[in-house]
Amino acid sequence: MPTDLLIHNCSALVRGDDGVYTTLPHHDIHVHGNRIAALTPTQPLAALDAHTIVEANGQIATPGLINTHAHVPMVLFRGIAEDVSVDRWFNEFIWPVESNLTAEDVYWGMQLGLVEMIEAGVTTVADHYFFMDEAARAVSEAGARALLGWAVFASQGYGALDATAAWVERWQGGAGGRIRTWLAPHAPYTCDDDFLRATVAHARRLDVGIHIHAAEDPAQTASSLAKRGITPIQVLEQTGILDGPTLIAHGCGILPTDVALLAQYSGHVGVAHCPKTYLKLASGLTPILPLQGAGVAIGLGSDGAASNNTLNIWESLRLMALTQKFTANDPEVMPVHAALDIAFRGSAAAIGMAGQLGELAPGYLADIVLIDLGGAHNQPLHSIPAALVYSMAATDVRTVIIDGKVIMQERQLRTLDKAAIIAQVARSMNRLAQRVPGQRIQVYNP
Amino acid sequence: MPTDLLIHNCSALVRGDDGVYTTLPHHDIHVHGNRIAALTPTQPLAALDAHTIVEANGQIATPGLINTHAHVPMVLFRGIAEDVSVDRWFNEFIWPVESNLTAEDVYWGMQLGLVEMIEAGVTTVADHYFFMDEAARAVSEAGARALLGWAVFASQGYGALDATAAWVERWQGGAGGRIRTWLAPHAPYTCDDDFLRATVAHARRLDVGIHIHAAEDPAQTASSLAKRGITPIQVLEQTGILDGPTLIAHGCGILPTDVALLAQYSGHVGVAHCPKTYLKLASGLTPILPLQGAGVAIGLGSDGAASNNTLNIWESLRLMALTQKFTANDPEVMPVHAALDIAFRGSAAAIGMAGQLGELAPGYLADIVLIDLGGAHNQPLHSIPAALVYSMAATDVRTVIIDGKVIMQERQLRTLDKAAIIAQVARSMNRLAQRVPGQRIQVYNP
Repeated sequence: MPTDLLIHNCSALVRGDDGVYTTLPHHDIHVHGNRIAALTPTQPLAALDAHTIVEANGQIATPGLINTHAHVPMVLFRGIAEDVSVDRWFNEFIWPVESNLTAEDVYWGMQLGLVEMIEAGVTTVADHYFFMDEAARAVSEAGARALLGWAVFASQGYGALDATAAWVERWQGGAGGRIRTWLAPHAPYTCDDDFLRATVAHARRLDVGIHIHAAEDPAQTASSLAKRGITPIQVLEQTGILDGPTLIAHGCGILPTDVALLAQYSGHVGVAHCPKTYLKLASGLTPILPLQGAGVAIGLGSDGAASNNTLNIWESLRLMALTQKFTANDPEVMPVHAALDIAFRGSAAAIGMAGQLGELAPGYLADIVLIDLGGAHNQPLHSIPAALVYSMAATDVRTVIIDGKVIMQERQLRTLDKAAIIAQVARSMNRLAQRVPGQRIQVYNP
Repeated sequence: MPTDLLIHNCSALVRGDDGVYTTLPHHDIHVHGNRIAALTPTQPLAALDAHTIVEANGQIATPGLINTHAHVPMVLFRGIAEDVSVDRWFNEFIWPVESNLTAEDVYWGMQLGLVEMIEAGVTTVADHYFFMDEAARAVSEAGARALLGWAVFASQGYGALDATAAWVERWQGGAGGRIRTWLAPHAPYTCDDDFLRATVAHARRLDVGIHIHAAEDPAQTASSLAKRGITPIQVLEQTGILDGPTLIAHGCGILPTDVALLAQYSGHVGVAHCPKTYLKLASGLTPILPLQGAGVAIGLGSDGAASNNTLNIWESLRLMALTQKFTANDPEVMPVHAALDIAFRGSAAAIGMAGQLGELAPGYLADIVLIDLGGAHNQPLHSIPAALVYSMAATDVRTVIIDGKVIMQERQLRTLDKAAIIAQVARSMNRLAQRVPGQRIQVYNP
């Protein structure tokens, strides 16, 4: 069987059975269709039979990064709400300006965010936003992979929920299988229990999972306990959400008792960890080590660019490692290999794609990134894993392959027109930044 | 008087009297000799008389960044000591491998670090290391600005101290005034009081300041209190160091009583804050807000790349802002304007260059960086200050001017041969990484 795509002469990042990441220098990666067929020592080009050959010139090949929680089109609001409390962030800035959004805005915002992510080696995103037909169209056109959810609040009514379920059916397996769709109720504090139960009923009928914000910070957990005597994670259990695939965003307010509860559902529950947002909004940190200990998959996310202010998962990786050491007061915590394992395999598991994404191995989907660590800021290269976690820049990503297709080659985008997208977004930015008093999509009062 | 260098059509970042940073769009910056002469609204090129014109095409002009504490040649050891305690970091990794260093290694390491810093818009570095004749030669050849100190331990004896003082005289005002030299005893825990007093005597005779590590983490302060009943900052006072210009590295172990003590010397004392190292080595954080309140200048530093693992001061800036919000549990703490003020004016004051560096204003030294915020990760550009703190990448720096000379233009280095430097360093990396049991330059036992 001839190779459809061959990556020639890369150093392939692989994980040993001892959990240590190493690179296989001078290797070729053979892709058949949209999957990795083999990794072999480099052969002369003349000996190879491949439809497309990507010359790596010794660059590092890694699995594509996965952004396990984002609101990608919020790049439209990047930098609009700085240095404010969470309450003001929602009520005075974000929810007012989101009332300006149109379907077309979301399409362009999604494209802009996909440009940013592809340029940074992010090949899959779990997105949670509005006007998701347009978001899905942008993903399809970009050639990216995504787990999409259409965000919904109980205040919108059951008709809106039904519409998001219809959208789930409409786009499931879209873009040649690159798009998966889940349900996406916003959060326990914006969706009452009956609404969550109705969501679960749709999810079981459609055989899909649920992507939801929960216990975003300790204050939300305290508020839930004060108002109704149970934590947000207990709400997820009592409404049946945890019985199926679940992706929990943030969880900085997860208590030790919640960890024990989640352990019972660990085979199909993931938590998206977005440390830059947590530092910036002073939300505390997800208890990722206890959750890992309970068997819960931990993935890396960006959250929206209105808080992050980027969609750079390399930065999430670095901040995760740094903050774990800092808060544990122990520099031996979260070694580089454990951090890389969360970025690659943990993130894949968190979005229900364990065994499909997150490794360079035969049978895995061919989402592959080539990285040039030859820049001054990475040299000399005593440790490739350390460079990936602590010194590389997103701009060191040179080439991005998704589903076996070359989406960016030597930093030239193949599917998206960056200049046109940036120009289009610039035209709408002033309209989108308008804040009309009293006009907002929700009120934040968890 | 004709303009020697003119930056045409930039957006110049300036600080208002209210402390808010704004940009002056469509402005020209006129440089006479090595200083900024004027900022004026953009004129047509035909109307301008300048020896050299740099076309900014609307890019953002900022003051060059200042790295107020580094061990630049330690880029040679980047990635060599990951995920280990401070004790093991010094005793098992860094101080053993530093025994391999030769003067020539330092020359090449300094050049490599200067490439990295110039590419990231760092125009001045306060460096603290060994073989500083070669470091100074590299700075001179690179066209960079530096405040250099030759690190010395009491165990080396007074002859070594005298030699560093002779070096201070030899290089003071070197490279056409771009190099200033200070004395650089390593730390109170490696230099006894008599040695520090002898250093002070040299400093007074030479009319220079002292750059020293002190109270690097809470454990060092606790150890000093246990062993001798006073803090490391009190040692600096009692030995007379604080009577003259002083640059204190780190200070994560500075106590409230130390802050009150330092307030008495605030006119000439600065503290270098290097948050990435503190997170990675779990050192706590410098109490920068109390120190600012006491009038002590706070600057941003990288520390060495063996802990950081880069020399990227934009990352130090971002981590400073994020960690201040996180540890204060208040997202309103350290707003972007306050963070930028530390990066620019604070850092200048910390190295004794207030009024000379850190602002784009007439009379200031012409250390200027041009930044392209047009990339997808910064767009749309609702807030330039927010982009500088939270979304830009070091690679967005396009052009670097130091002392009125173009050192990098559109990412092409003018003074350093990057490929040759990286190749040279690669040849020595295995030799430098050797750890011979028992062979180390010091023992860490603060």
